[in-house]
Amino acid sequence: MKSILVLGAGRSCSTLIKHLLERSEDCDWKVVVGDIDLAIARQKIANHPMGEAFKLSSTDNIERDKRICESDLVMSMVPPFLHVSVAKVAIAAGVSVITPSYLSPEMEALDESAKKAGVLVLNEIGLDPGIDHMSAMQIIDEIKADGGKMIGFESYCGGLVATESDNNPWHYKISWNPRNIVLAGQGGSATFKDNGRIKLEPPHRVFRRLRPVDIDGCLYKGYPNRDSLAYEKTYNLEGVKTLIRGTLRVDGFCRSWDILVQLGMVRDDVHLVWDEGISWSEWTRSFLPASTASMTVSEAINSTVVSDHETNKRLEWLGLFDIETGPSKASGSPAQIIEALLIDKWVLDEGDRDMVVMWHRFEYEKDGKRYEKTSQFALEGTDSVYTAMSDTVGLPMALAAEHMLVEGGFGRVGVDIPVSSVYYQPLLPKLKELGIVFKESLRTIS
Amino acid sequence: MKSILVLGAGRSCSTLIKHLLERSEDCDWKVVVGDIDLAIARQKIANHPMGEAFKLSSTDNIERDKRICESDLVMSMVPPFLHVSVAKVAIAAGVSVITPSYLSPEMEALDESAKKAGVLVLNEIGLDPGIDHMSAMQIIDEIKADGGKMIGFESYCGGLVATESDNNPWHYKISWNPRNIVLAGQGGSATFKDNGRIKLEPPHRVFRRLRPVDIDGCLYKGYPNRDSLAYEKTYNLEGVKTLIRGTLRVDGFCRSWDILVQLGMVRDDVHLVWDEGISWSEWTRSFLPASTASMTVSEAINSTVVSDHETNKRLEWLGLFDIETGPSKASGSPAQIIEALLIDKWVLDEGDRDMVVMWHRFEYEKDGKRYEKTSQFALEGTDSVYTAMSDTVGLPMALAAEHMLVEGGFGRVGVDIPVSSVYYQPLLPKLKELGIVFKESLRTIS
Repeated sequence: MKSILVLGAGRSCSTLIKHLLERSEDCDWKVVVGDIDLAIARQKIANHPMGEAFKLSSTDNIERDKRICESDLVMSMVPPFLHVSVAKVAIAAGVSVITPSYLSPEMEALDESAKKAGVLVLNEIGLDPGIDHMSAMQIIDEIKADGGKMIGFESYCGGLVATESDNNPWHYKISWNPRNIVLAGQGGSATFKDNGRIKLEPPHRVFRRLRPVDIDGCLYKGYPNRDSLAYEKTYNLEGVKTLIRGTLRVDGFCRSWDILVQLGMVRDDVHLVWDEGISWSEWTRSFLPASTASMTVSEAINSTVVSDHETNKRLEWLGLFDIETGPSKASGSPAQIIEALLIDKWVLDEGDRDMVVMWHRFEYEKDGKRYEKTSQFALEGTDSVYTAMSDTVGLPMALAAEHMLVEGGFGRVGVDIPVSSVYYQPLLPKLKELGIVFKESLRTIS
Repeated sequence: MKSILVLGAGRSCSTLIKHLLERSEDCDWKVVVGDIDLAIARQKIANHPMGEAFKLSSTDNIERDKRICESDLVMSMVPPFLHVSVAKVAIAAGVSVITPSYLSPEMEALDESAKKAGVLVLNEIGLDPGIDHMSAMQIIDEIKADGGKMIGFESYCGGLVATESDNNPWHYKISWNPRNIVLAGQGGSATFKDNGRIKLEPPHRVFRRLRPVDIDGCLYKGYPNRDSLAYEKTYNLEGVKTLIRGTLRVDGFCRSWDILVQLGMVRDDVHLVWDEGISWSEWTRSFLPASTASMTVSEAINSTVVSDHETNKRLEWLGLFDIETGPSKASGSPAQIIEALLIDKWVLDEGDRDMVVMWHRFEYEKDGKRYEKTSQFALEGTDSVYTAMSDTVGLPMALAAEHMLVEGGFGRVGVDIPVSSVYYQPLLPKLKELGIVFKESLRTIS
């Protein structure tokens, strides 16, 4: 019997662990789950006979490393900065690793030693990155094999809320790491290619130049993510004219979120201490000029940035104009204060269902004609635990695990990401069976 | 005979070294100047019989540390991150250190060992920080000693160009580190207090909320610098309602510079590679939406951000719309490309004179009345080498050195900054003799 070690059992691991357990008898494997919070690991195992929960220490790695050495495959769901430390131990023990996180330069540096050990460290095999890589590369490879020449590629993905559970004016609820939601777009300039030109958008402009995307009759808006230019090499798209990867939100969200960005309410670079018991209204005035002190907060915002009625309604709904209530903790960075507020306001309540949407656009030339192909999927979650986010992160990982342990593997060693056919050929059809179904459309554009 | 060691001989050291040499016979000291570029160190010494030049190694500190141990006082003019390494060697050798740079936490951590060694490590004794500390604290201490209660404090300083040498539409030339000019205001959020409230301004807003300042009939605009809140403690201003430290520019400069900030043209967080031979006009389009491709660059800017005729004239004067010329190096961060352009366009030509201005505003209550006191100075440089910037950075340092080596010292040991009377009482009168003369005015405001 083989043994799969899952490190971390947080909200994004629900489907991964459930699916691995469901497949445990057929695949003849044991699923060992470790978390700093033993109760959470136990909850995810739910007394399954093939499951085992243990406690990860927060002070040393003795137990973790022992478990890695005893396992046949490690699913690393720890905070991203810890993946390299997990991978080093696994490589030394000759154990392969799967992570959903972005490949870091430190991880890339382990390529040589992973190859020597005959081990695969497969990164970016979740939703975005993950399903996006596989679904995009399948079509790019097809277009090229068919004699087409790629001209442009755009790809957007969003973790949203299902229409039936959408009962707030932001049309948004939290299905993943809330800190990442607050800091979205603020980590650095977005760079991409648009119509043959390199473009840069600073963090204070990303929520302003939006790409409209229609998925199943619903209007979304996309904003560009950090470094799209790197994908020219990663996706073999050298010489392409347009290259943008980004994030999708329901129409209107970005316009209102931009006001928080403009005012500095999501800055994470200063620690401030406000008066104990400060109201939200007073707190919001920290981001407004002293000259607006005699206005209402809503008027003050309108006189400081270009806002609109809908946006002010959304800010009011968040409670930012309240004079009776205030931040529960009146010190921290503005981003930390806003994060605590959003965790409360944008909670995915029991019974709520989230939704994941992904949309690719491929522009190419063939036989003197220009074509546009789009490919998209939308998936709703089951409930607030087995979310579409948890499904789309966990299922590609679980399927990759099964392929590696039961079906002979991908024939790769070293540190890798799933951008080649060895990954998408076996995995995409199985994702389809599990409900992640891409719909394509093609039209001639000249 | 004593020996003063000056580490670094760049443009900001001209006056410091000249003044130390001029005082060398009266003070009976030798002036030893080291620089990575021996020619620059020699040029600054200019064959003075009391001067000695030597070469600083860029690969090891052997020569530097030997020189530190042989000296009686070190003037550290090296890049800021190197001050701590200099101070450690000096403390171990029992030698005091003077630097014009901001006190870093790493430097502060040396306080104990400096005290044990009986050594003074005096930081922030240049212009800003330096002269600002001493001139502000003298008045704050006076107001308090006179029974006044401080209500507000604002302080602005700027390195500008003298009116007679002002022949460009930006009314600006470079008298200090060009990289710092390009990145001004972009290092992090500005925090301050305004009318009783804590305020935060993100980097993309600092050039928008400007404080008008009239100095000798000339209108300047001030923008807030990084962390003014810390000065509540540093200046003993606990409970004050308004507390802002900032930078001054000629009216109009900030409004136009803001466009570069808005468009992302001074971002330093991405390295981009443009096509070889790209024109400035094409380069500028990197920061404009693809939808503006059919417009002229000037029109495209107007349709993207809120610009104005004067600003577009200034951008055009910089050459950013040129179709014939382009960046000499077409790779780097936007900030690096702009820096190379500005070094050329905003050069302080031979014969050009720069100007330094500083303005403080003190608001206080006394006997039920409210008062406003302002204190200001403006100083023009001699030429493009002995600039007002070099004078105002170098003279407080040189005077502090003389006080320490010849006049018995400040009676302080440890790591310090000049915010107490032991510094400003001896130094401000001597700065006045050398032309740095503050003019004060007082009015009742209620």
